[in-house]
Amino acid sequence: MTIPQNPLLNDRDVEFLLYEVLDAPRLCELPYFADHTRETFDLYLQSCRRFAREVLFPTYRPVDASPPRFEGGAVAVHPTLKQVFQPMIELGVLTAARPADVGGQQLPLVVAMLAGAYLMAANLSACGYLGLTTAAAHLIQTFGDEALKSAFMTRLYAGEWTGTMALTEPQAGSSLADVQARAERTDAGHYLVRGSKIFISGGDHDLAENIVHLVLARIDGAPPGIKGVSLFAVPKRRHERWPEGGRLVPNDVEVAGVIHKIGWRGLPSLAMSFGERGDCHGYLVGNPHQGISYMFQMMNEARIMVGVNAAATASAAYHEALGYALARPQGRPLGSKDPRTPQVPIVEHADVRRMLLRQKAIVEGSLALVSTTARYADLAAHAADPAERERAQRLLDLLTPITKTFPAEKGFESNALALQVHGGYGYSSEYLPEAWLRDQKLNSIHEGTTGIQGLDLLGRKVVAGGGAALMALGGEVEQTIGRARRAGVEPAWCERLGASMSLLGELTMHLAEAGLRGDVERMLRHSADYLELASILVVAWQWLAMAAAAREGLARGASPAGFYEGKLCAAQYWFSTELPRAPALAALCRSGEDSYARMRPEWF
Amino acid sequence: MTIPQNPLLNDRDVEFLLYEVLDAPRLCELPYFADHTRETFDLYLQSCRRFAREVLFPTYRPVDASPPRFEGGAVAVHPTLKQVFQPMIELGVLTAARPADVGGQQLPLVVAMLAGAYLMAANLSACGYLGLTTAAAHLIQTFGDEALKSAFMTRLYAGEWTGTMALTEPQAGSSLADVQARAERTDAGHYLVRGSKIFISGGDHDLAENIVHLVLARIDGAPPGIKGVSLFAVPKRRHERWPEGGRLVPNDVEVAGVIHKIGWRGLPSLAMSFGERGDCHGYLVGNPHQGISYMFQMMNEARIMVGVNAAATASAAYHEALGYALARPQGRPLGSKDPRTPQVPIVEHADVRRMLLRQKAIVEGSLALVSTTARYADLAAHAADPAERERAQRLLDLLTPITKTFPAEKGFESNALALQVHGGYGYSSEYLPEAWLRDQKLNSIHEGTTGIQGLDLLGRKVVAGGGAALMALGGEVEQTIGRARRAGVEPAWCERLGASMSLLGELTMHLAEAGLRGDVERMLRHSADYLELASILVVAWQWLAMAAAAREGLARGASPAGFYEGKLCAAQYWFSTELPRAPALAALCRSGEDSYARMRPEWF
Repeated sequence: MTIPQNPLLNDRDVEFLLYEVLDAPRLCELPYFADHTRETFDLYLQSCRRFAREVLFPTYRPVDASPPRFEGGAVAVHPTLKQVFQPMIELGVLTAARPADVGGQQLPLVVAMLAGAYLMAANLSACGYLGLTTAAAHLIQTFGDEALKSAFMTRLYAGEWTGTMALTEPQAGSSLADVQARAERTDAGHYLVRGSKIFISGGDHDLAENIVHLVLARIDGAPPGIKGVSLFAVPKRRHERWPEGGRLVPNDVEVAGVIHKIGWRGLPSLAMSFGERGDCHGYLVGNPHQGISYMFQMMNEARIMVGVNAAATASAAYHEALGYALARPQGRPLGSKDPRTPQVPIVEHADVRRMLLRQKAIVEGSLALVSTTARYADLAAHAADPAERERAQRLLDLLTPITKTFPAEKGFESNALALQVHGGYGYSSEYLPEAWLRDQKLNSIHEGTTGIQGLDLLGRKVVAGGGAALMALGGEVEQTIGRARRAGVEPAWCERLGASMSLLGELTMHLAEAGLRGDVERMLRHSADYLELASILVVAWQWLAMAAAAREGLARGASPAGFYEGKLCAAQYWFSTELPRAPALAALCRSGEDSYARMRPEWF
Repeated sequence: MTIPQNPLLNDRDVEFLLYEVLDAPRLCELPYFADHTRETFDLYLQSCRRFAREVLFPTYRPVDASPPRFEGGAVAVHPTLKQVFQPMIELGVLTAARPADVGGQQLPLVVAMLAGAYLMAANLSACGYLGLTTAAAHLIQTFGDEALKSAFMTRLYAGEWTGTMALTEPQAGSSLADVQARAERTDAGHYLVRGSKIFISGGDHDLAENIVHLVLARIDGAPPGIKGVSLFAVPKRRHERWPEGGRLVPNDVEVAGVIHKIGWRGLPSLAMSFGERGDCHGYLVGNPHQGISYMFQMMNEARIMVGVNAAATASAAYHEALGYALARPQGRPLGSKDPRTPQVPIVEHADVRRMLLRQKAIVEGSLALVSTTARYADLAAHAADPAERERAQRLLDLLTPITKTFPAEKGFESNALALQVHGGYGYSSEYLPEAWLRDQKLNSIHEGTTGIQGLDLLGRKVVAGGGAALMALGGEVEQTIGRARRAGVEPAWCERLGASMSLLGELTMHLAEAGLRGDVERMLRHSADYLELASILVVAWQWLAMAAAAREGLARGASPAGFYEGKLCAAQYWFSTELPRAPALAALCRSGEDSYARMRPEWF
């Protein structure tokens, strides 16, 4: 039994998304992307996918098996990571979507993210260092002054140093209002930072000579709550003279402990102490007390990135399960039980195909969703027309909690199905699906838990601007329905999606009214169910768009026809099994069902 | 922050199930259970739960951290397991439900299983050795001759030796028709067994001096397929003379390899070779070629046991998450964002209560389901009236695939929620939820995968005897509805459950007609969805029974009232969020939706 090499993502699917569903090359009509063409997109994609398959994926298992070691106060990562780190930087991962004036390639985010998905599917941990580094650089690029940019941003984008996000504290968790780290201004201009942080991914390692932590802390005398939290760049080693330079000296940043994560095992998650000896220099990013708003302005990108992580992790496992199901003989078709006939590959069993098609629907639906969202990010930043930028920004804001959550939550289910397809072998660490299942679980937790995304969607995003984002989404869905009708897609799907969108709109009005009456608890009680409902609809929209493109492909005789037929089967699956869940979910949200609202802690 | 000691199961809930929902002491009116009373039930329960909490649970983490070692051809288990093995036998676990004439206590299975659930929640692997041993002894008790009983059964029930089930082969997996192990009859009466088996739990260890493997193999000249498979008792060490005795000598049973399981890490899963040197003696159990039917007659108990494993594993994690949520301060209530007020325990957040109530609904629904099924097993074996035994057997047969699957599948979701409640800490192996999540995943695979359970339910159980089992279930549900109405339970719940049962009945008729027309593929296409639908309904029935008992408790002023209020909240949750999924699932099954039926392997 030979299981084929795992492709991580289906190249044809990526091509389909970019060129048949989303028409990404149209972005090149915008000035920011003017130097690009489909050819430059493909060059970048091709270099990333080749590196992912040939170099990075072979490192996954050894890195997963031997997590970083913490010895003598420092973290040593797996030696293999050192071999792939520099080549990944040379691929251009850190600056693919950044502007040329900071050394970037100005690629659309939609292209950069899909290319990045190959790398994530190959080794999520290795990508983690780079994702954090480019995000930290971007924060400084957007909000930092020239001194910060020249001291930190340039080195981060060059991959000489790496970055972290040091937000969470042990006593506060998701509640950033309760950040207690302190910063005291000195006459020299820098601040002395003091405090404890936890879950700092990549907080220490031996991949680069220095690490820049972006730390949330309160300046002495700041107001309480989130309005008193500032953002600081705090290097592991500081230049002797600020900002001029000089040799690097220790900056009183220490590793307090290592968290033994169950996945992403190449990327250490650390408890960190800043300023235990009173000598930790931090440099204010932007204005005092604006730290949370800076972080939130960066959050969209980080949350879409989580969606890509999740989609990529589910994709790798799906392709592994598919390869296994095509190769593994076991049992015989229903009604053909003659034991003297040869066994058939398990893909021939309907229930195995069900598990594979469900994975396909989730994985490819997730990839379409993150691509669509990334494209709105591209338009929000670079569309020519200010009104179009605003509209794209609204759609981006609205879709972000869904893009963060759906691939994480349903991806976890998809990863579990990949394990299940492997049967008893799936329960063994000699096969890969269990590792991806562990990796996936983080995505519903970091960058805002699923519960927080639900509150964000219903409490902020759909009601902002008088529901403008939801109306914009309705317009987009209508456009897709029009395209689908023209392409000859099943009319019932178009009708059902239209009806479901109306249902969502009415439900949202109903809930918003409760909020306007001041009953915020009632409004947000079913925010998790609302998020699930909205996710099912948004992914149905994606599947309708893919079905339209598939019908168009079949109509023009593009090949292979089987690729399009598979897309139509997966779309049918989503419209037949997931979309019909919408009415019951909407009724639940609307009813205000109060079981867990009235449940008291002592009744459990 | 102090997290309370995990109770593993809620004692009040166990008491509620046995004495308020199921009226288990009525079983003592039957001759087989005549020596028992509520007091003897409680004594056994109390000794098991105390041992589980005080002795067994503290072994869980060290055993999980250091799986068995395979050295010099033999498996050495964690030393802690040696310390708990004998005391567990002394608790009476092996023979609790067995008849007095084999040294048993003749306890009802429903009591033995709930007591066992504490032990499983404390350390699933440690329980695995005993579960396999008592099952092997029971097989020999039921089908073996006197020689087998005196040679093996007695020692197994005494815990001197342990047992295994050696069914699966590398090339066949779930397809037992393709078993290739051979057995050649000798003039001395024993057989020479030869073949490879895989996934043999407890296949080797150093807990006892000998191991009895129950091996499926083909006698030379046997017919092909499942009708040519026989069952053999194959000891690791055999007595020099059979059946008389003599010293133990090696029996040519070797460990071929260790499978690195992701959970149940105290119980080795092995690849085994039988008869590589042509000297492996096996002793036929029962008649030739009847092996599969013997295994299937034992399967009910094994599958219910999987359900108990799953419910127990979900229960331990639920109680851990509940303890954490009650203790962990973070954030503030909606509409009370003043950062100068203290943070509240996370149980105060609606979405955390949602995750906890969902776990409660799954865990306690699962425990009720396994208890109800075990009670039917008690009646099927020991009811006075043959018609009642037959009726109970039908219900047992019908409920078995659901009892095997629901706690495993929804338990996995529940275990994931327990991790999620712990936030970032849940993603760390320093907290227990991730370990239980790993343990749980096996339960959807072993003893017949979820896919196989769906085929069993729809293809065999609901259609057997002209649908007699489903009619019997309808009668039981009607009885519960009557009790619920009298107790003053929400009438809408009663109506909804009644309507859903009618829906299930009509759907089953519709699908059975397709089968009668010879279209088996069409009939069974949505067997996974059918199993999910039936599970939702059966668990709703359990929650209606618990709601009725809760209302009765409140009416008579039993305490604590909060316990009953919590039950009513969980019942409400199930009736409001899960039961409303039934119509869409039924419509899906009925429609014959063909996305994965027509999907071709090359279209993926």
